[in-house]
Amino acid sequence: MTITTLAVDCMGGDSGPSVMVQAACEVLTGNPDLHLNLVGDEPSIRACLTRMDQLFLTRLSITHTDEIVVMDDLPSKVIRQKTNSSMALALQLVADGKAQAVVSSGNTGALMAFSRMILKMVPGISRPAIISSLPTDSGVTRMIDLGANVDCSPEQMVQFALMGAAITMANADNTDKLPSVALLNVGSESIKGNEQTKNTHELMQKVHNINYLGFIEGNDVFNGDVDVIVCDGFVGNVLIKASEGVVQMIVRRLKQHFSRNLLSRLLAALSTKVLKSFHKSVDPDRHNGASLVGLQGVVIKSHGAANLKATVAAIQEAVREANYDTPNELQRRLGQQISQTMDHE
Amino acid sequence: MTITTLAVDCMGGDSGPSVMVQAACEVLTGNPDLHLNLVGDEPSIRACLTRMDQLFLTRLSITHTDEIVVMDDLPSKVIRQKTNSSMALALQLVADGKAQAVVSSGNTGALMAFSRMILKMVPGISRPAIISSLPTDSGVTRMIDLGANVDCSPEQMVQFALMGAAITMANADNTDKLPSVALLNVGSESIKGNEQTKNTHELMQKVHNINYLGFIEGNDVFNGDVDVIVCDGFVGNVLIKASEGVVQMIVRRLKQHFSRNLLSRLLAALSTKVLKSFHKSVDPDRHNGASLVGLQGVVIKSHGAANLKATVAAIQEAVREANYDTPNELQRRLGQQISQTMDHE
Repeated sequence: MTITTLAVDCMGGDSGPSVMVQAACEVLTGNPDLHLNLVGDEPSIRACLTRMDQLFLTRLSITHTDEIVVMDDLPSKVIRQKTNSSMALALQLVADGKAQAVVSSGNTGALMAFSRMILKMVPGISRPAIISSLPTDSGVTRMIDLGANVDCSPEQMVQFALMGAAITMANADNTDKLPSVALLNVGSESIKGNEQTKNTHELMQKVHNINYLGFIEGNDVFNGDVDVIVCDGFVGNVLIKASEGVVQMIVRRLKQHFSRNLLSRLLAALSTKVLKSFHKSVDPDRHNGASLVGLQGVVIKSHGAANLKATVAAIQEAVREANYDTPNELQRRLGQQISQTMDHE
Repeated sequence: MTITTLAVDCMGGDSGPSVMVQAACEVLTGNPDLHLNLVGDEPSIRACLTRMDQLFLTRLSITHTDEIVVMDDLPSKVIRQKTNSSMALALQLVADGKAQAVVSSGNTGALMAFSRMILKMVPGISRPAIISSLPTDSGVTRMIDLGANVDCSPEQMVQFALMGAAITMANADNTDKLPSVALLNVGSESIKGNEQTKNTHELMQKVHNINYLGFIEGNDVFNGDVDVIVCDGFVGNVLIKASEGVVQMIVRRLKQHFSRNLLSRLLAALSTKVLKSFHKSVDPDRHNGASLVGLQGVVIKSHGAANLKATVAAIQEAVREANYDTPNELQRRLGQQISQTMDHE
């Protein structure tokens, strides 16, 4: 197996480098062919390394910088003013071929802007999109775009379909099967939808190489009937966040109901194992790690407030995509496709 | 107390008149000042009435018609061709002052089109919108629009805010408090959002009479921090359906986990009461009954596949709004407001 190196932006999280460093070292322990390049303030990073982590010193390097992108930095300013930030340097490691993927929990807008500038887009793709997996009854579904683009053209949305298929392939056991794609809409009949959806539906049917199934409604998103759900980034962002909000509300309610009186508390104690395995199965943390896709390099965004388990999930996604080389797969799929049927930005 | 009459379109549901008739009679039993006018095929309706219901004959009339709007009828055709349908006749009863609200579980597009034609809009409102309540930690939040309008102008979205406030007042105990309104967006900073959201945000701040709090993100929808959430009908429709999808998936998972082995099945049996009260607290059925608002009459849409409990919830919403006279309250609120600050269609 070839060696994969991850460039880890350690300075993006809400609470300094500790969670990111700890999570990265945990993934390192389980992957003998993995190397890490931890980017950020060296003394702070070193302080987070345990004695155990030191054993892996041959697979672990640190790139020091004291410049940090913060959450309220404006993307347009950051790409001119913070070119020595941990985020920029981590992306540069991928651009230079010294790493195969970046993981960051920093400012999404800045990560988008720096990624476009440093890594460049895959030819035929106009802007990066954000894709992530959702839990469903039969496994996972991926949704794209989750907020990178809030006023999307039909051409962009067809690009989302191609990108979604490539990411699905990177995560699939059976890579012969062409991933299925559906377009999020308010109904399943072709007269339904806003202008954007109608025009995208028409264009989607003309593009080869996409296993396009037509429309999908909100209530079917979590059924697991399709591999990729395409939507505008505004819609995807509110939908994914609202779904997490629903899960959190329901888990809170369940706890309330199981703590109402002595008997229900006793039942909860007896049911701990069942309730824990249930929580695990709907836990949004396990689906942390969104890909910024369409770039000439793998970029994974972890939640700013992600805990250890969630951050580990994001880093594992980075390893899978680095191993599969998603950007290359996407480029292969686009091939002549895009240049023939779609207009470029 | 004054007498309220509901016009009930009995022929809209997926499974004939039985659920609607049964639910209407159940609400009748509990409301001594309520009268019902059941509209549809008289023999079929009579077949659904129990001996008990017959006792209420003085408060129960039937308007016979054998014309029915079906689910795949095109709204544009239906309003020319099915003017004697149960849906049209029920709306006509309200237009003629013979009833104070309509309940229908029929084709939403047809109900919209007929409502506009027969009841007319409240002056200053360009098109009807769909509003419904969502369960939250602290009670309910209302979301508008849930799919009546899929390409909304900022002017329409400000109208949604006014309509949402009026419906909230109809359901509130304390009618002195001005309902709070937030605009659904992908972030809370004012630079975030698509063009539609940015323009609506700007306009919303200029309108008096709205207690506008600014943006709300998807993850906060179910927190119960605001009374009314305004969004484009496309976004609202996919969000509400996806949220229901999440609830259904979670309830299925919980059942699975509690039925894995003998011990967990035993625990489930012991926990029946807790699990039932939990299910009840997150059950979407209890929030069935969306209002078509902006019309000169109360129109409540129930799900086509709603069960008895859900249909009862929809009919109760109709009674509340009829008693409060939402259209009149909306008209009062609009007053000079709309004519001064907003353009009309």
